[in-house]
Amino acid sequence: MTGPCFISFFLLLNLLPFFQTLEASHCSIKGLPLVRNIADLPQDNYGRGGLSHITVAGSLLHGLKEVEVWLQTFAPGSRTPIHRHSCEEVFVVLKGSGTLYLASSSNKYPGKPEEYFIFSNNTFHIPVNDVHQVWNTNEHEDLQMLVIISRPPIKVFIYEDWLMPHTAAKLKFPYYWDEQCFQVPQKDEL
Amino acid sequence: MTGPCFISFFLLLNLLPFFQTLEASHCSIKGLPLVRNIADLPQDNYGRGGLSHITVAGSLLHGLKEVEVWLQTFAPGSRTPIHRHSCEEVFVVLKGSGTLYLASSSNKYPGKPEEYFIFSNNTFHIPVNDVHQVWNTNEHEDLQMLVIISRPPIKVFIYEDWLMPHTAAKLKFPYYWDEQCFQVPQKDEL
Repeated sequence: MTGPCFISFFLLLNLLPFFQTLEASHCSIKGLPLVRNIADLPQDNYGRGGLSHITVAGSLLHGLKEVEVWLQTFAPGSRTPIHRHSCEEVFVVLKGSGTLYLASSSNKYPGKPEEYFIFSNNTFHIPVNDVHQVWNTNEHEDLQMLVIISRPPIKVFIYEDWLMPHTAAKLKFPYYWDEQCFQVPQKDEL
Repeated sequence: MTGPCFISFFLLLNLLPFFQTLEASHCSIKGLPLVRNIADLPQDNYGRGGLSHITVAGSLLHGLKEVEVWLQTFAPGSRTPIHRHSCEEVFVVLKGSGTLYLASSSNKYPGKPEEYFIFSNNTFHIPVNDVHQVWNTNEHEDLQMLVIISRPPIKVFIYEDWLMPHTAAKLKFPYYWDEQCFQVPQKDEL
């Protein structure tokens, strides 16, 4: 399906105000079809090189309150930030391989993380508040995962490195892919 | 990996008491590896012909409290019961196709459900408490889905047909795949 790509390109060049309306409209859950094709859902890197993120089923996009599902693809070498969150998170590795770095939250700072190699058909979950990073350390293949979180939208604390104290980690909320739709209701209220 | 199958067969024939210990031990979350191969996880039809169910990440098996993830495969013609639950549920169709039947919970009984055809790469979620059934209506291919629920372990109300009043639907708790591990802690307390 090349249709949606062509339309976006056309609008970007010629009809920016109309495109902005479209942007906002994808944040409305009214009139959403119940069954959706994942390939037709909004997909972006949200300013992070090598990432493709799709919110498959989510809080701000689809009205869920208790769970959210993402499809994420990391190009070779790309990775999540070092981060923690107080929700549960489950990964299902669909394609490729990589490395999970995981450190507990019981000391003042994460410290040297444990390393776990992850492969296609693996599953793992992150203990609540443990500091972690997923990295596509395979030079030759994309790493694709379904990611499930509880209590959306996610509140993420980001670390610059593994020696940063937990108290210095910076809250990023709304998170990259929640920013656009998180702002829409506020604008409507003005 | 044929090893585990051979071992189970051997134990079933010769060492039933030891086998019962093994059954119970897969319910313990102590010593579980963080990264698991989905193909190595317990898989069963739980007495329902045509079903293959794997709890990929769960409450009773893996200690999660807020989300649970299943991998389910339905042979042609097989289906879920007509049922409802008060948790959120998201489906990601990995293979095959089928039909989702969905009725609201706003009348005294479900009534004739809406029909939605579902295909590989589709996603959908079930509105909380809506009565539904997923049926592999494709005669030629298995229907495989990842299923995500909130607030595990699941409490399911089962209907005999679409005209059964909501108040007559029967609670099935613990659900089929939660029965074995749900009972283990109770036994330990005796």
